Amino acid sequence: MSALTAHMFSAESMRRVFSEHSTVQRMLDVEAALCEALAAAGVIPEIAVGPVRASCDASRYDLDALASAARDAGNLAIPLVKALTADVAAGDVEAARYVHWGATSQDVIDTGMVLQLRDALELLTVDLAELGDALAALAHRHRMTPMIGRTWLQHALPITFGLKVAGWLDAVLRHQQRLRELRSRLCVLQFGGAAGTLASLGDRGLSVAHALGRALELPLPSLPWHAHRDRMAECATVLGLLTGTLGKIARDISLSNQTEVAELHEPVAVGRGGSSAMPHKRNPVGCASVLTAATRTPGLVATMLSGMVNEHERALGGWQAEWDTLPEIAGLCSAALTQMRDVIEGLGVDAARMRANIDATQGLVMAEPVSLALAVHVGRAKAHEIIEAGCHTALETGQSLAAVLAADADVSRLLAPEQLSLLLDPVRYCGEAAAFVDRVLAAHRHAKA
Amino acid sequence: MSALTAHMFSAESMRRVFSEHSTVQRMLDVEAALCEALAAAGVIPEIAVGPVRASCDASRYDLDALASAARDAGNLAIPLVKALTADVAAGDVEAARYVHWGATSQDVIDTGMVLQLRDALELLTVDLAELGDALAALAHRHRMTPMIGRTWLQHALPITFGLKVAGWLDAVLRHQQRLRELRSRLCVLQFGGAAGTLASLGDRGLSVAHALGRALELPLPSLPWHAHRDRMAECATVLGLLTGTLGKIARDISLSNQTEVAELHEPVAVGRGGSSAMPHKRNPVGCASVLTAATRTPGLVATMLSGMVNEHERALGGWQAEWDTLPEIAGLCSAALTQMRDVIEGLGVDAARMRANIDATQGLVMAEPVSLALAVHVGRAKAHEIIEAGCHTALETGQSLAAVLAADADVSRLLAPEQLSLLLDPVRYCGEAAAFVDRVLAAHRHAKA
Amino acid sequence: MSALTAHMFSAESMRRVFSEHSTVQRMLDVEAALCEALAAAGVIPEIAVGPVRASCDASRYDLDALASAARDAGNLAIPLVKALTADVAAGDVEAARYVHWGATSQDVIDTGMVLQLRDALELLTVDLAELGDALAALAHRHRMTPMIGRTWLQHALPITFGLKVAGWLDAVLRHQQRLRELRSRLCVLQFGGAAGTLASLGDRGLSVAHALGRALELPLPSLPWHAHRDRMAECATVLGLLTGTLGKIARDISLSNQTEVAELHEPVAVGRGGSSAMPHKRNPVGCASVLTAATRTPGLVATMLSGMVNEHERALGGWQAEWDTLPEIAGLCSAALTQMRDVIEGLGVDAARMRANIDATQGLVMAEPVSLALAVHVGRAKAHEIIEAGCHTALETGQSLAAVLAADADVSRLLAPEQLSLLLDPVRYCGEAAAFVDRVLAAHRHAKA
Amino acid sequence: MSALTAHMFSAESMRRVFSEHSTVQRMLDVEAALCEALAAAGVIPEIAVGPVRASCDASRYDLDALASAARDAGNLAIPLVKALTADVAAGDVEAARYVHWGATSQDVIDTGMVLQLRDALELLTVDLAELGDALAALAHRHRMTPMIGRTWLQHALPITFGLKVAGWLDAVLRHQQRLRELRSRLCVLQFGGAAGTLASLGDRGLSVAHALGRALELPLPSLPWHAHRDRMAECATVLGLLTGTLGKIARDISLSNQTEVAELHEPVAVGRGGSSAMPHKRNPVGCASVLTAATRTPGLVATMLSGMVNEHERALGGWQAEWDTLPEIAGLCSAALTQMRDVIEGLGVDAARMRANIDATQGLVMAEPVSLALAVHVGRAKAHEIIEAGCHTALETGQSLAAVLAADADVSRLLAPEQLSLLLDPVRYCGEAAAFVDRVLAAHRHAKA
Repeated sequence: MSALTAHMFSAESMRRVFSEHSTVQRMLDVEAALCEALAAAGVIPEIAVGPVRASCDASRYDLDALASAARDAGNLAIPLVKALTADVAAGDVEAARYVHWGATSQDVIDTGMVLQLRDALELLTVDLAELGDALAALAHRHRMTPMIGRTWLQHALPITFGLKVAGWLDAVLRHQQRLRELRSRLCVLQFGGAAGTLASLGDRGLSVAHALGRALELPLPSLPWHAHRDRMAECATVLGLLTGTLGKIARDISLSNQTEVAELHEPVAVGRGGSSAMPHKRNPVGCASVLTAATRTPGLVATMLSGMVNEHERALGGWQAEWDTLPEIAGLCSAALTQMRDVIEGLGVDAARMRANIDATQGLVMAEPVSLALAVHVGRAKAHEIIEAGCHTALETGQSLAAVLAADADVSRLLAPEQLSLLLDPVRYCGEAAAFVDRVLAAHRHAKA
Repeated sequence: MSALTAHMFSAESMRRVFSEHSTVQRMLDVEAALCEALAAAGVIPEIAVGPVRASCDASRYDLDALASAARDAGNLAIPLVKALTADVAAGDVEAARYVHWGATSQDVIDTGMVLQLRDALELLTVDLAELGDALAALAHRHRMTPMIGRTWLQHALPITFGLKVAGWLDAVLRHQQRLRELRSRLCVLQFGGAAGTLASLGDRGLSVAHALGRALELPLPSLPWHAHRDRMAECATVLGLLTGTLGKIARDISLSNQTEVAELHEPVAVGRGGSSAMPHKRNPVGCASVLTAATRTPGLVATMLSGMVNEHERALGGWQAEWDTLPEIAGLCSAALTQMRDVIEGLGVDAARMRANIDATQGLVMAEPVSLALAVHVGRAKAHEIIEAGCHTALETGQSLAAVLAADADVSRLLAPEQLSLLLDPVRYCGEAAAFVDRVLAAHRHAKA
Repeated sequence: MSALTAHMFSAESMRRVFSEHSTVQRMLDVEAALCEALAAAGVIPEIAVGPVRASCDASRYDLDALASAARDAGNLAIPLVKALTADVAAGDVEAARYVHWGATSQDVIDTGMVLQLRDALELLTVDLAELGDALAALAHRHRMTPMIGRTWLQHALPITFGLKVAGWLDAVLRHQQRLRELRSRLCVLQFGGAAGTLASLGDRGLSVAHALGRALELPLPSLPWHAHRDRMAECATVLGLLTGTLGKIARDISLSNQTEVAELHEPVAVGRGGSSAMPHKRNPVGCASVLTAATRTPGLVATMLSGMVNEHERALGGWQAEWDTLPEIAGLCSAALTQMRDVIEGLGVDAARMRANIDATQGLVMAEPVSLALAVHVGRAKAHEIIEAGCHTALETGQSLAAVLAADADVSRLLAPEQLSLLLDPVRYCGEAAAFVDRVLAAHRHAKA
Repeated sequence: MSALTAHMFSAESMRRVFSEHSTVQRMLDVEAALCEALAAAGVIPEIAVGPVRASCDASRYDLDALASAARDAGNLAIPLVKALTADVAAGDVEAARYVHWGATSQDVIDTGMVLQLRDALELLTVDLAELGDALAALAHRHRMTPMIGRTWLQHALPITFGLKVAGWLDAVLRHQQRLRELRSRLCVLQFGGAAGTLASLGDRGLSVAHALGRALELPLPSLPWHAHRDRMAECATVLGLLTGTLGKIARDISLSNQTEVAELHEPVAVGRGGSSAMPHKRNPVGCASVLTAATRTPGLVATMLSGMVNEHERALGGWQAEWDTLPEIAGLCSAALTQMRDVIEGLGVDAARMRANIDATQGLVMAEPVSLALAVHVGRAKAHEIIEAGCHTALETGQSLAAVLAADADVSRLLAPEQLSLLLDPVRYCGEAAAFVDRVLAAHRHAKA
């Protein structure tokens, strides 16, 4: 993404994680830790550590020049190692000999990326927990607030707004679990040298690798994974799933925010969502961002999966396809997540309008409970026939279903007026909605404990 | 996929899981179990169970007629429930009243699909374990078999074939873990009724749901998930990741199977991989199937992610997009997995050719160990300069690097002939390859225990 | 897609084009034409033609057995040629020698597919023209029917329904042009023999190729294109673009079909779109199918593009990925197109509801023309300030904007009541809507001429 | 893409087209032209033009501040128009009243994007023509250079290198045609105002639109197309097709650049493709970039297609998904195209190695012509049997097929030694290769004329 769109399509904290400076710094962090690990393992003299570490500071390098050189080199690590070596050599020629010792470009690029992704997952975990909390509070508050349930974009039967929110929260809880499972597979060291054998370190390869892992707080995997990208691709899929759920919530809210529906409203803020030319508009700017992220992410995830088909010990195109794609996915996910958290935290809920909308179809959405009650007396088929006729009368005459049925001798013979009234009360026809909400809230509490 | 391509792009066992007959039978299994659960909960009379269960047999229905009616209905459950009701009614009009009681189409379709996916995961788990075992045996056998490591499709440094296979196995172990984690989230009941509240079951919704889950051996989730498709989409992503790894293995094998490389050969069989017009060909038919699956799956996974953005309580397009897509992904994954298992189990390994290929570049791939050994004496820069010159001489004159270096006074002054010989032995320059293989084999044993 | 979903996700005529029988028949058509072309060029004896042509009848072959054998062979042509040869040989051993002479499997598969795609484009062209005509009639009828324009799913300013439909039609016209351009590139012969040189035909390769092209009415391209799949991939993209537009129209209609909006209604039919449990529902079944197609197609198009990266003279996975994918795209496109044509031809338009919805925001959507009129007198900033205040008053008090402005001294000083009334009439504030409709209708007439 | 990867994944000229500065400048170009058009149509006073045009200079604005404000506004045009208005007002309050008059944000964003895409297509057209010329020269030079044709990554039959290159060129010619067709649909004005009716311009909407189109040299389409994104999506698909072809060429070259194949070599340059640790490596850096682009583009194209399903008169997510995606596709395409042009212009072709590789299978690839020659005498089946046996003998004994056949009495009885020798000459078994090359070269000349 360009600097012009970065604020729209990434959260500020995530932009910092994947900024040009951070990207280079994380690679330099790997080089510094490598130098220490090599010295600790006795592969290189201890004296090299200080100068190398001092040079491992991204602000010392011309990032534009590195970027330009990366084109011919084929990756960023080659010019960076060259620049780092020169920077060390300017002060200590001897120390410069040990820069990048035993490593290959991909070790540095991959481990640097893992460090960035670890930060990214940390951010997303915090934001997701905040979203979960906001949803839990909202579900609890509206546990019994009736609204119409909609299928096929048509009024179906009543639900509660709490149930809808609990459905959102339930998915969030699964994503929290997925993020945890992902982290254990993703956040590991990449260190294998030119062909993945650490051969240039002689018999000290594994001990250097252990030391490097400890220094970076990254577990050592069973073996280097240069050409096996399932870890990176899994990261993409897990964030993709999360963004998909956020898109679903945004779809619900933006539909509920329609002028004609008006049940939910994105929080209003100065300079946000208003239209100077059209003062009645309440543009769901946050939902639009989330939906944009949900539109863009599936294709990017597909790229990551396509890129898995690597050639032999290092890929020709597949690995390289990750460099922009994974940060883009993380940025979009963070934008969607923080926007959605803000939307939920400030969401305007118009319970009266929800109630009014239930009644918009003259009570027809309450046909089922009456039909079921009649079925006890006359069988399902006959009951359905009576109610269907009643609904058509209501639709044609503009009367409410309540009035039509009250006037129907077949019905009034079987159902007393007060019974009919109760049957037509949407709050009383929300089934297990409250129980479902409670189950989800309990799961949320359990997950937090 | 069509019947003509089904054998190529799905395993036979997986085709049975997703056959037309199975699809309808699984939905009928849900209807039968629902009827029992309703009776057990006292919602409907026990007497309905026998007739309904007897009619829940897919062979009683005209699948073509159902398929045709599904077009106007919008899904398969509507005509199936109609046909089931008629079938029951033909024998027992009373029992027919209780068919599909309290359920919505999506309950039946989703739970039927979950039952199919449970079977699918079972099959994949078995096949994946077999692939893992075959890879472990292969890695063990070739733990010390030297071959050239290739990066950028260029000879890099020696590795062992065991190390390459251990890398394949290591990824397989991660996929086994992912499949386990997926199963616990995916294999749950879907049961919510028309709007997800189970309202038509009055106060017995949850007890029916519990009974239904027990009958189908599917845990009851916190709440119905009609419009939250992350479970289904996650299934797609996990299979997509697995297929990606299989594609990477197939890429490696097919590249190694090239006429010019000839290190690995797909197992030969009658009518398989041969070309009548070109008898010298050994077409990697299995790898081609796997690569086809790896080419097709990313886009299908993207579809599943795009489909997550559902509208309110039931989607308009997103859910429906799953019906063909998820079985297609499972079929492709099963085809890739069984083909790859067969390829690995019968893989021809030409260790002599591997050794010969290492030498194809006149020993240049062994430049690094000599350079490192020289560096101890003359520093890295100078050593690199000497070796670079030696390599160019070798390339220009067609001599081996060994001969060039032996004739180089700078080198022979520092390295004795026998030392030089050892340095140029690829087997001795495989670093931690054997240790890495052992780590993966231990992880494999641990995972099986 | 499976037989159970085929009716939902493909049009009947398109299913015939890509049926198992047709697929085999089209390949046999190529074999028969090849035999004739060879005889005409004097490569094989004329006497072979009769027996071969007689055997080129798909109903003579066991399609299941072919499909099964295709798995090991790697494609369908190998077992088909074997079966064809055997069938010819049963009657004429001599003639059987000339079956498939000079051709390679891919010649037959690709040219067979091109023949199917030519039929497919023919069907789509007819259906698209019908959709275009229906849209033109609708746009003409509602050229001046006012409705609210919606941006961000919020009421914006008035438009006419004709303008909206003209926008749909305008896109359809572009797709007609794209289909024409595609056809000229796509519908060409594939004929190159084993490596694309026609070497086995000696010096008669080109003359056989010309004869074969004439027989199949397919132009001869500059050279065989086995490994260049841009023609096939372009077909996918053009259908993908068309399906995308259909999805946009379906999105508009399904949103307008919402219970709360109720401006447009899919045509009602027996057994279509109704819900027995919820008689008030008017499920947009057609739009759901179209939206499903629009959800599924982008990933399939991506597959076709990914598959373009073929290896040398014949691919290992990329080409094979087309076999299911391209027919699937064509099926989905045909389903979407015929469903949308039917929806448009029977679309219910509630002009009164459109008018009523305009007024749902108390006239606030008419703020702009009043603001512009005031701006002439007091400048844009001041005018905007006055109107913004008026809008807020209207929103807070529930009055119409007309009433609020009429009572505003600043406004009434500058705008006479009748002027204000005209300014607040939505029909008068549709700008160039009618002119735009006319421009599109003219383009439609021009394209038909 | 980030600044660090921009050089790898976009051509320099394309980066300028889509730089932050250019993006803002193109939007300002639209604002300036709009102001002039309004004045020309008499809608606003002529005096406003000078001040507005003077302020329409991107260097006057703080792009970071605009980017940051875009997050809350939902797009970049809103803060830009605000900043522009303020900048004009600082010098001329009166002129500032007429900034952006009659336009909506999307008019400015879309038309600005069209102007950028027009520049992008111009660049790609020039680069593609250069690639075409380089390919034509290469095909001409190697029209008769024999090499082995490879199917399934196996040696098949001889072709000429010219034929392979002609296949590449033939695809390039189709892409040139597609680019031309695209341009006529894509490069049009977007101008519709808030709801696409130009209502705020009263009866002068169309005349302003015509003037604006003339000023920007963009034809006026039949009507505004805010919610119809097929133009933009088509641009993505056409570039995606082109990138796919470039990926295919890169696949071929990188496979031919393998150490074991060594027929083609990317041009060598200082700091490019070499590996300091492994001096024998000739990394195909250019091909890797192209393959990266080909891996990334399909998913991005899918995003553009998914984004087509817009809501009503302005989208909520679909349109916004284009902003990064389309420039990314253009950047990747330009990187792939310029890299491939450079690779082709400097491609190292080792004809001797090509010839040697043909012989690598002991002449088995020449089995077909001998088999065909024998078939004239003994029938195809018998001939095939003889040759198959000969091939196996050759494979088992390590003899050449020529030697085996010469020693075979069945063969020598029928084919004289010199006839056998001619039959086994690969150059003589390239069929219509030269004719095919000539056909493509003629088409190339024709396209240039």
